[in-house]
Amino acid sequence: MSAKTIQLTDYNIYITNFWNDLKQVIGKKNYSKVVVLVDENTRQHCLPILQQQLQLEQKLLVIEIKAGEQHKHFATCQYIWEQLLAHGIDRQSLALNLGGGVIGDMGGFCAATFKRGIDFVQIPTTLLSQVDASIGGKLGIDFQTIKNCIGLFKNPQAVCIDPVFLKTLPIEEVRSGLAEIIKHSLIADEIQWKNLMTIEDLNTVDWSSILVPSLGIKKTVVEEDPFEKGWRKILNFGHTIGHAVESHALESSHPLLHGEAIAIGMICESYLSYKQTNLPEESLKEITHFILHIYGKRIIDKTSYPDLLDLMTKDKKNENDQINFTMLQSIGNPLINQISDPKTILESLDYYCSL
Amino acid sequence: MSAKTIQLTDYNIYITNFWNDLKQVIGKKNYSKVVVLVDENTRQHCLPILQQQLQLEQKLLVIEIKAGEQHKHFATCQYIWEQLLAHGIDRQSLALNLGGGVIGDMGGFCAATFKRGIDFVQIPTTLLSQVDASIGGKLGIDFQTIKNCIGLFKNPQAVCIDPVFLKTLPIEEVRSGLAEIIKHSLIADEIQWKNLMTIEDLNTVDWSSILVPSLGIKKTVVEEDPFEKGWRKILNFGHTIGHAVESHALESSHPLLHGEAIAIGMICESYLSYKQTNLPEESLKEITHFILHIYGKRIIDKTSYPDLLDLMTKDKKNENDQINFTMLQSIGNPLINQISDPKTILESLDYYCSL
Repeated sequence: MSAKTIQLTDYNIYITNFWNDLKQVIGKKNYSKVVVLVDENTRQHCLPILQQQLQLEQKLLVIEIKAGEQHKHFATCQYIWEQLLAHGIDRQSLALNLGGGVIGDMGGFCAATFKRGIDFVQIPTTLLSQVDASIGGKLGIDFQTIKNCIGLFKNPQAVCIDPVFLKTLPIEEVRSGLAEIIKHSLIADEIQWKNLMTIEDLNTVDWSSILVPSLGIKKTVVEEDPFEKGWRKILNFGHTIGHAVESHALESSHPLLHGEAIAIGMICESYLSYKQTNLPEESLKEITHFILHIYGKRIIDKTSYPDLLDLMTKDKKNENDQINFTMLQSIGNPLINQISDPKTILESLDYYCSL
Repeated sequence: MSAKTIQLTDYNIYITNFWNDLKQVIGKKNYSKVVVLVDENTRQHCLPILQQQLQLEQKLLVIEIKAGEQHKHFATCQYIWEQLLAHGIDRQSLALNLGGGVIGDMGGFCAATFKRGIDFVQIPTTLLSQVDASIGGKLGIDFQTIKNCIGLFKNPQAVCIDPVFLKTLPIEEVRSGLAEIIKHSLIADEIQWKNLMTIEDLNTVDWSSILVPSLGIKKTVVEEDPFEKGWRKILNFGHTIGHAVESHALESSHPLLHGEAIAIGMICESYLSYKQTNLPEESLKEITHFILHIYGKRIIDKTSYPDLLDLMTKDKKNENDQINFTMLQSIGNPLINQISDPKTILESLDYYCSL
C-alpha cells in the first residue's frame, strides 16, 4: 500500500510507494495493452524504475518524445497518435504518462482524444507536475504562443506520486515546482505559508510532508468547481502575468521555467492586490522578500511590455475582453474575477523591475 | 415554438421552425460573442436564412472552411482555432456549427477543445447529420485515413434541425443520409423498415415524419450508453465494412458519400449476419434488394481487399486486435461484439460484388 492516498470523486492519488496500487488499477480493467509516454530524461532516469517495479503481464510499449515545453504542440501530438496507431492501441488499452507537466498535459490530451478517449494514468515526476498537474483534469497543448490554448478537462484513472523521482531532477526544476506550493499557501493556508518561509535549502526539504497539504488545498478547490466556472479561479493567482512572462520568455533566448515565471507573476499580482484589494503593505513585502530569496531577480526589459499586455489580453481566463486576475485581500484570503487596467498592470511590472 | 422538441438528458433537439428556441438558448447564457462555422455551400445557401431569422444583438462572426470530408483534418482545425483567436473568442462565447457532418464533427471538436471548451450549438443541414450526428456528442476529425480517429464525446447546448435545409442539397446527399435512417430501422424498428421500403421517389418524402422516429431510436440507444461501452455499438451496424470502404474510396478518384459506403457495409454485414447470427435468408434478400434499389451498385475491385482488411484492423471499434461487428439476428434485433475472420469478411465483399 502507498504511504498516503488522497481520494477524489472518481480517482485516487497514491503518494509514495504506489506500485501495488498501480498494479491494481491496471489489473482491474484487464487492459489489452499498456503504453508509456516518456521523454529522453524520464526514459533514462524514471522508466527503469517503472519497468523494474511494475512487472506487468503485458509488454510495456514505449513512446518517446523530446523534452521541453517548446514541443508541447500539434506536431508532437501527431507523432504520439501515429505511434499509438502503429502500436495497435485500442480503447481497451491504457496509457501511462511518465514525466513532468508537458508529458502529463500532452499525453493526457492525446489519450483523451485518441479514438475518442482511452484510459490514462498520470505519473508526474517533477515537483511542479506532482503538486499542480496531478489534480483537476486539465489537459492540453500550446497553440500560437498561447499556453494550453487547446485542450479539455478529463480525469485520469489514477495519479501516482513519489518524491523519489525528484532526486532525478536538477534543483531549478524543484525550485520551479515550489512556486505552485507557495501559491497554494498564499491563496488558502497561512500556516503552510509560515512553514514555507522557514525553507533555507531546497536539498533538505521533506517533500512528502509539504506535498500532502498542498494537494489537499488543490483537491478541495477543484472538487468544488471542476470546470473552472468560479471559485477554482483562485488557483490562477500569479498566472495572468506569470503566463504572459513565460510565453514571452519561451520565444526568447532565455526561457523561464513555469514556476520561475509564476514567481514573478505572484510578486506583480501581490502588488496589484496591494493597490486594488487592500493586501497589507507588510504582506506584499513579506511575499516579495521570500520569493526573491528563493528565485532571485529576472531582468524584464520595458520593450517587452506591449507584447506582455498583448499576451494577457489573449489569456483564455479573460471574459468580455477584460484581463482577469485573482488577487489577495490578505494571505490565505483571495478574490476572483478582479479586473485591472493596462496602466496598473504595467505599474506592477515596474514594481518588480525596481526591486 | 418549434413543431417538435426531443428532450435529452442535458440538451434539447428542436425540429422545424426552431428560431425562437435558438434565440432563447443564446439569450439564456448572455454570450459575449457568437461565431458561426460554415463551408462555401452553407455560407451561400444556409447562412442567409440564419442571418435573416436570428437577428441577434451580437454581431454574427463567420468562419468559412472548405466543404468536404477530405478537409476534416488538423490543418483545418488549426485554421479554425486561428480564426477563433483572431476573433477574440473566449469561454463566454458560443459557436454555431451550420453544415453537414464535417462542420458538426470538426466544428464541435474545435469548440470543445478551444480554451478547454466553449459552448456550441449544432445546426445540421444535411439529412445525414440531422439524423446521425445530432445525437450522441461524438466529435472528431480524421487522421491518417482513419475516420474520426481523433475526437471526444461532448454534448452541444442544443441541436436545431429543419428539413427546409434539405432543399438546398443535391439528391445524392439526401440519399446518403437515408442510409442512417435505414440502419436505425434495421437495428430497432421493423415497422419503420416496412415504411421505408415503400419509398419510391426521394423528392417527395415527408422527412419530418421519418426523422422523428429515427431520432427517437438514436436517443434511446445513446442515453442508455453515452460513451459507447456496450449497447450503443448496435449503431455500428454496417459501419465496420462501410467505414473501410469509405476511407479507401476517399483516397481514390471516385470517393463515396458516407451513406453510400454504409449502404455497401449494411449489405455485407447483413451477409455476415446471415452466415454467423442466423439472419433469415429472406431478410438478407429484402435488405439487399431495397438498398440496391436506392443506391445502385458500386464496383469494388478485388485488388482493394487487402487495403480494406487493413483499414478494418485499425478500426477504433476493435478490441484485442479483433475486427468487431454488430450483426442482426433478425430485422430490429441486433447483436453487438461479433467477431468475424478475414476469410468470411472477404466472402461478404464477394457477395456484394456478385450482385
